[in-house]
Amino acid sequence: MTAFRGTQPLLHALDEAPLARGEVAIVGAGPGDPGLLTLRALSMLQQADCLVFDRLVSEEILAMARPEARRYYVGKASRCHALTQSETNALLVRLASEGQRVLRLKGGDPFIFGRGGEEAEHLVEHGVGFRVVPGITSAAGCASYAGFPLTHRDYAQSVTFVTGHSKGDRDLELNWAALAVPHHTTVFYMGLANAELICHKLQYHGMPAETPVALIERGTTPHQRHVVATLGNLVEVIEREGFRPPTLIVVGEVVRLADTLAPGMTTMSRAESEEREAAPELRKVAR
Amino acid sequence: MTAFRGTQPLLHALDEAPLARGEVAIVGAGPGDPGLLTLRALSMLQQADCLVFDRLVSEEILAMARPEARRYYVGKASRCHALTQSETNALLVRLASEGQRVLRLKGGDPFIFGRGGEEAEHLVEHGVGFRVVPGITSAAGCASYAGFPLTHRDYAQSVTFVTGHSKGDRDLELNWAALAVPHHTTVFYMGLANAELICHKLQYHGMPAETPVALIERGTTPHQRHVVATLGNLVEVIEREGFRPPTLIVVGEVVRLADTLAPGMTTMSRAESEEREAAPELRKVAR
Repeated sequence: MTAFRGTQPLLHALDEAPLARGEVAIVGAGPGDPGLLTLRALSMLQQADCLVFDRLVSEEILAMARPEARRYYVGKASRCHALTQSETNALLVRLASEGQRVLRLKGGDPFIFGRGGEEAEHLVEHGVGFRVVPGITSAAGCASYAGFPLTHRDYAQSVTFVTGHSKGDRDLELNWAALAVPHHTTVFYMGLANAELICHKLQYHGMPAETPVALIERGTTPHQRHVVATLGNLVEVIEREGFRPPTLIVVGEVVRLADTLAPGMTTMSRAESEEREAAPELRKVAR
Repeated sequence: MTAFRGTQPLLHALDEAPLARGEVAIVGAGPGDPGLLTLRALSMLQQADCLVFDRLVSEEILAMARPEARRYYVGKASRCHALTQSETNALLVRLASEGQRVLRLKGGDPFIFGRGGEEAEHLVEHGVGFRVVPGITSAAGCASYAGFPLTHRDYAQSVTFVTGHSKGDRDLELNWAALAVPHHTTVFYMGLANAELICHKLQYHGMPAETPVALIERGTTPHQRHVVATLGNLVEVIEREGFRPPTLIVVGEVVRLADTLAPGMTTMSRAESEEREAAPELRKVAR
């Protein structure tokens, strides 16, 4: 990864003001593969004095930062927060007020289920300047690496990203009828714990039990694995195969296109190809 | 832009097989800002023998390719196709069969309204190997640069991307009731020509006329401009301000967050800041 240290000239071609002392860059790190970082994200990594990062930001990506940058882990797992959101907000303000160039590095895109909006609101309240760098959101990364598109003129003319995880301890309240429409793709972020509810509600609102569902665990990383199940057997497949967060759940006919497209793809994620060799039965069994 | 020529070592750190002769890379170029290219996209640009690119891929991005790479413009405007989709498909197969390393460069993400799925299907049919590199989709890029998030725990727990443009000459048939739900954001790609229908249908299904709507033209480029209108006056604002494609239409309460967040942002797109200085009335008038 030290090769990245030689890329400084690249980043000044981007016509962007340098990260200032006391400023926060809220940056999307993408779904995992360091190759999915944007050039702006890399530029911010190479300028920051300190990194405030989530659980889903990989060591490979952190290694692209300046070695002397201080690291603050504020990761969130479903039921285990290293820092509360308000503690994270306060940390960003404190570091900025010390005059540091702060990199707030988030998995995926900061403005799609990233709470980037909430952190930005807090920075505004405290007079801290910030910039936002969008990132590849998990749905886009995971679908590409699993071999199917999110939209397709013949199968889905729209796609919805929805959080499958509720705020606090409330039940997951979604407009299920709006998600159960045909010619549509729905991607549930953080939905594993609510998979049973998802299957029940979508079928109750008219989606056939045979509707294909992709499960993609740790998508775009060397540990990616995915299977195609159906609404009817999704819960059984999750339990049998032991899927763990982070797992993306994608519901819709587009999922079937992986059967056609994946065989033509020359590069899947590194571990995807290993999994395909090691466990050819897995994909078949799960149908 | 020649600074980018020195970045070759960077790209081999990404642990990805080189683009092979006779292979096609279907690559998302993001919404416009070259800084939103991914490292993988840059890697493909620096390996390709020829570029097959759309209208929305900027000259700045093309300039990062090898100077000797041959260029094929296959751009699509709403009513003016340089090549039909099947001609583009055939071109990709022909170039690959000549043993070239082919870069199919698309605005945004190839698998979100990019027809990447259709092109990939055609490549599979003809035995051409390919890889897919996801890109920042317009919705994510434009929202960030306009200063609002697409989701926010208090305002929208889901976001839908939908094409506002129908296949062929058919009327735009969408499941409008599913889009008109509260606590939700809807992004219409290519929706300008159908803005009147969009406003009518969403209001018919219960969205208030006061629902805020962002119009973002040429988002993330030096020519970005945007205004905030409402469902009630959107058509009038589009006509008065002369919005032209590509313009993204974003409907939902999250749009209002730009009022709070944009003043704290240190970098908007380059021209966004010019527009804000030059035409402060524009944003106000359009409300």
